Amino acid sequence: MTFLALLRHGQSQWNLENRFTGWVDVDLSPLGVEEAVRSGQLLARCGVDFDGIHTSVLTRAIRTGNIALEQAGLLWLPVVKSWRLNERHYGALTGLNKTETAERHGAEQVKLWRRSYDTPPPPLDPGGPYDLAKDRRYAGVPIPATESLKTTLERVMPYWNDAIAPDLRAGKNLIVPAHGNSLRAIMKHLFAMSDAAVVGLEMPTGNPLLIELDAALKPRAARYLDEARAEKLPPLP
Amino acid sequence: MTFLALLRHGQSQWNLENRFTGWVDVDLSPLGVEEAVRSGQLLARCGVDFDGIHTSVLTRAIRTGNIALEQAGLLWLPVVKSWRLNERHYGALTGLNKTETAERHGAEQVKLWRRSYDTPPPPLDPGGPYDLAKDRRYAGVPIPATESLKTTLERVMPYWNDAIAPDLRAGKNLIVPAHGNSLRAIMKHLFAMSDAAVVGLEMPTGNPLLIELDAALKPRAARYLDEARAEKLPPLP
Repeated sequence: MTFLALLRHGQSQWNLENRFTGWVDVDLSPLGVEEAVRSGQLLARCGVDFDGIHTSVLTRAIRTGNIALEQAGLLWLPVVKSWRLNERHYGALTGLNKTETAERHGAEQVKLWRRSYDTPPPPLDPGGPYDLAKDRRYAGVPIPATESLKTTLERVMPYWNDAIAPDLRAGKNLIVPAHGNSLRAIMKHLFAMSDAAVVGLEMPTGNPLLIELDAALKPRAARYLDEARAEKLPPLP
Repeated sequence: MTFLALLRHGQSQWNLENRFTGWVDVDLSPLGVEEAVRSGQLLARCGVDFDGIHTSVLTRAIRTGNIALEQAGLLWLPVVKSWRLNERHYGALTGLNKTETAERHGAEQVKLWRRSYDTPPPPLDPGGPYDLAKDRRYAGVPIPATESLKTTLERVMPYWNDAIAPDLRAGKNLIVPAHGNSLRAIMKHLFAMSDAAVVGLEMPTGNPLLIELDAALKPRAARYLDEARAEKLPPLP
């Protein structure tokens, strides 16, 4: 048996401003910092000895992990960062206010972009303020111009298979502080969720989901550590 | 040419209380946090693109690195943590107040323990409050019972040779947030300092030392980033 704690980062500055964020490296808001502190306290007393962290290369997820580790007295754990755990890339919607976008493109179209499994928004214009081609952290990385949940999953899974799953098979208990959609990708895989089911999955922020896995990495149990704020979970596969 | 920034962590809670700390995992004081912030600002504008961090498994060094990375917008950099970069282990002096220790053992004896190259303090009593045998972070690690600067250097150097030097040879510019004595070990090696010279070396806290290295990892230039608080440096080898 090994344990995997999935942790969706808390509020960021652009969550607060209701803007599409994706790969833009927006920091946590003060509330987001509080959510990370609370997550660390929950992880510290859940009874699991954690051995390592995998997170994205985005500040809001990394800080969530660091703050949680500090709270839990676990700052010494190894932390590995990969772009493959980044949030879904929102293409041309990046930086736009969600309400304004709905007014411009229609609520139905925006809902399709946000909530369908395989419809990506239009691609991001190259050379604009959110073009990451010159960002050193993505040197050698095939930066997407836009992503659906489906293509997000397709780039998360190689990291699951090559980095996270081997650690779990080696008996390591892991914390994965990441983003709404990279965590959906992991949940879809672990719980064998349908395309339709995964788009309806909402993971709460600042509330670690502790999953107990058997030797085949199949979930045997799962629970949100703050039970008062637990969201509905998919059935065990 | 590659660049190595050595960063001695700032004030910890026990620095403030004038106690021997060594491997006890004491956190930064509020002043220590400020020193880390300032270090990050200095690193951000020194003109070097850093590629990674090596630090110890002690909270005060890890937090110094994390806070500095946050300030510099570099939280995405890979961070590797090793016990080999820990502070010198102070043996039976661990936890004692420095003034009281001088009154009990005599100022000369304490000066010898603190400032000789190869005289370790008496070993730490097993089973006491500072015994780390049951600390998970040191599973499999040959935890010393006491260390001189000489034996500190002997356990730092394998990490230099196996982890830091290969990164530098690969052209990576590195930041090493660590401790007074693990940094002395690196300085002694890089600057070919004598035993007598290295015990007199005082690195300032919160002031990164930027060293330019040639292909053979020989220092070609070195400067403290906050010139107003620069300490004397050993001559280039």
